[in-house]
Amino acid sequence: MPATRLSDLSEADLLARLFPVYAGAKGGTADVVIGPGDDAAVLAAPGGSVVLTTDTMVRGRDWRDDWSSPHEVGHKAVVQNVADIAAMGATPTGLLVALAADPATEVDWALGLAEGIAAAAREASAPVLGGDLSSAGPGTVMVAITAVGDLGGRAAVRRDGARPGDVVAVCGTLGRSGGGLQLLLADRGRTHDAPDAMSAHRVVHDLCLAHRTAGRPPWEQGPVAADAGATSMIDLSDGLVRDLGRIARASGVGVELDGEALREHAAGPLTEALGADEAMRQVLSGGEEHSLVATFAPGEVPTGWHLLGRCTAGAPAVLVDGAVPVVTGWDHFRG
Amino acid sequence: MPATRLSDLSEADLLARLFPVYAGAKGGTADVVIGPGDDAAVLAAPGGSVVLTTDTMVRGRDWRDDWSSPHEVGHKAVVQNVADIAAMGATPTGLLVALAADPATEVDWALGLAEGIAAAAREASAPVLGGDLSSAGPGTVMVAITAVGDLGGRAAVRRDGARPGDVVAVCGTLGRSGGGLQLLLADRGRTHDAPDAMSAHRVVHDLCLAHRTAGRPPWEQGPVAADAGATSMIDLSDGLVRDLGRIARASGVGVELDGEALREHAAGPLTEALGADEAMRQVLSGGEEHSLVATFAPGEVPTGWHLLGRCTAGAPAVLVDGAVPVVTGWDHFRG
Repeated sequence: MPATRLSDLSEADLLARLFPVYAGAKGGTADVVIGPGDDAAVLAAPGGSVVLTTDTMVRGRDWRDDWSSPHEVGHKAVVQNVADIAAMGATPTGLLVALAADPATEVDWALGLAEGIAAAAREASAPVLGGDLSSAGPGTVMVAITAVGDLGGRAAVRRDGARPGDVVAVCGTLGRSGGGLQLLLADRGRTHDAPDAMSAHRVVHDLCLAHRTAGRPPWEQGPVAADAGATSMIDLSDGLVRDLGRIARASGVGVELDGEALREHAAGPLTEALGADEAMRQVLSGGEEHSLVATFAPGEVPTGWHLLGRCTAGAPAVLVDGAVPVVTGWDHFRG
Repeated sequence: MPATRLSDLSEADLLARLFPVYAGAKGGTADVVIGPGDDAAVLAAPGGSVVLTTDTMVRGRDWRDDWSSPHEVGHKAVVQNVADIAAMGATPTGLLVALAADPATEVDWALGLAEGIAAAAREASAPVLGGDLSSAGPGTVMVAITAVGDLGGRAAVRRDGARPGDVVAVCGTLGRSGGGLQLLLADRGRTHDAPDAMSAHRVVHDLCLAHRTAGRPPWEQGPVAADAGATSMIDLSDGLVRDLGRIARASGVGVELDGEALREHAAGPLTEALGADEAMRQVLSGGEEHSLVATFAPGEVPTGWHLLGRCTAGAPAVLVDGAVPVVTGWDHFRG
C-alpha cells in the first residue's frame, strides 16, 4: 500500500491528527489560557515579561533524512530553542511550531516530527501553543520553532555582563554533538534506521545520537545560574570558542581557557571514538551542543557547573593556555 | 556588476545590514527589555499574559516574485500575523522573523523583505525582537513570522462565544485581496515592477496591491471590539464563508448572512474591476483579506463595523439569504 502523503489529506484532517500528538505536553510554570485552534494562543506571563526566541531547521541543511528520524529532528528543533530560553536565565513555558513541507511528504514523517517535538516539549514542560502549516516546493521541509519563556521576576542574563576576574564555567557536555557529526560524516556513525550497522561501539552510538537529537541539555540550570548571580550566559550553538567569543566581544573582556580543564572534557568517550586531537577540536569548536556557559564572580559557581577558565582585562578574544586556538566554524550561507 | 548574493556575505555581515533596517520600528504598549542580538529577546507583558501566533510565507506558494516585490512580501507576512493578534482582542507588541533562503538569493532582495517587515512593524507598533537566518535549497525562500500581543487585562475573544441572536459584523474590506489575485492570475493585474502595464485602471491597481501587501487591516479595532463585548472574533484569512464557518462550528450557532449587505460590499471598485458575479464570489470566498469579523449582542456593535447578518440556533453552517452559498476555498496541501 503506498504511503499516505500530505497531499492526500486536507489541512483540517492533518491538524486533527497533529493536535492529539501535541496535547501530550503539559505546561509547567505558566498557564495556557488558550491553546491551539484559535487565531492565536494566550499564555500567562506570571513574571510580567516574556522571553522569546526562534530557530529553524531545514531538510538537507540542518538534518539529513538518511541519518535522522523525524522524531529526532523534532526533538532537536525544540532543544535548540529551549536552550536559548535557558541561556537568558528563564524557564520555558510554551512553543509555536511552523511547518512548511512539500505536499509529497509522508504523513507518517510529519507525525514522527510532531512526536519528537511533543517529547521534547514534555521534557521542557513547554506545551505546543499553536502553529502553522504551509506547503513548500519539491523536497523542501522546514520547521521553525518559537519558544517562549518566563523569568519568574529575575533579571535576564545577557551576554554583555562579564567582568575581568569572573570565572568561566560550563554546565553540560562539550563536543559530543560535533563529535557525532564527524562520525556520521566519516560514515562511522549509527543512523536511526541502522542501529547495528557501522560500529559496535556504544560510545559511537551515543555521540551520533547526541548530534541527531541534541540530547537533553541542563536547561533548568539557566535559572539556577541566574539566581547564583551569573554575569553573562550563552548556550553553545556554534562551538565553545565562537560562542565565548560573543561574550568576550559583548562584555569587552578577554577569556582565558585552561587547556587542562578542556582536556578533561575531551578525555573518555570523545577521545575513545575520535582520538585525542579530534576530541579536543570538538570540545573547542563542536556546534549544536546547547550546554550552558556562563561567567560568575569567583566562589559563586553553582553545583554542577565546571570551571573552564577566567575573564581578563585583555583584548576581547578567547585564548587557550595563552594562545589563540585554531577552530573551525559554521556559517549558514557560506557553509 | 553582478548582484551580491547571501553566499557572498558572512552571517554576521548580513545581520549587520539587517539590524539597522529593523531598528526603525519602535514599540507601542510593551517595553522591549532586550532586543535582537542575545540568545533570546525579553518583552514586557504588562497585562500579565501574552498572545502568540505564527504564520509562514513560502516563495512560489504564498507569493510569486514576478508579481510581488520583496517589500510587499515582508509587509504581507507581518500583516497576516498582526491580524491574528487583533482577532483575539489584543494589541501587537513585537515580532520574531525567521528567514530560510537559498544562499543564491540576492542580498538586495533580503534587505527589501526586511524593509517591508519593518514598515509593517512600524504601522503596527510591533518592533522586531529577534529572528533567525537559515540556508535553504535552490530556489527556496521562506519567511516565518511570530507575532506577540498584549491583552491589556482584557479577556481574549475566542471563536466559540457566539450566541443565537448575536449580530455578525465586519470591520474592514471584503474581497479585495482575492479580487486582486484573480486579476493577477488573469494577467490583468499590475505587478510591482510593471506599474503601467496591463491596465490603466486605478481600481485594478489598488486591488492587486491589496493582494500583494495585504494592505492595512483595521487591527486597532480588535481591542475595540473586545471592549464592546464581542462574543467571538476572527480575521479573514480563508474567506468570509469559510472563516465564519469556523465561528459557527466552534460556537454551535448558525450564521445567516444578508445578501443585500454583501452586495453593498461587492458594489463599486470590486464590481467595476471584476463584474458583479465575480465581485460577489470574492466577497464570499476571497482569502487573505485580514479584516476582522465579530459577533456582538444587538445594539453593541462599535462604530466603524458593518452589519452582515446574525447568528441563529440553526445548524452550524453559513447561509446567505437562507441558502448555502457556493464558495471555493484554499487548502495548503491539496492546493
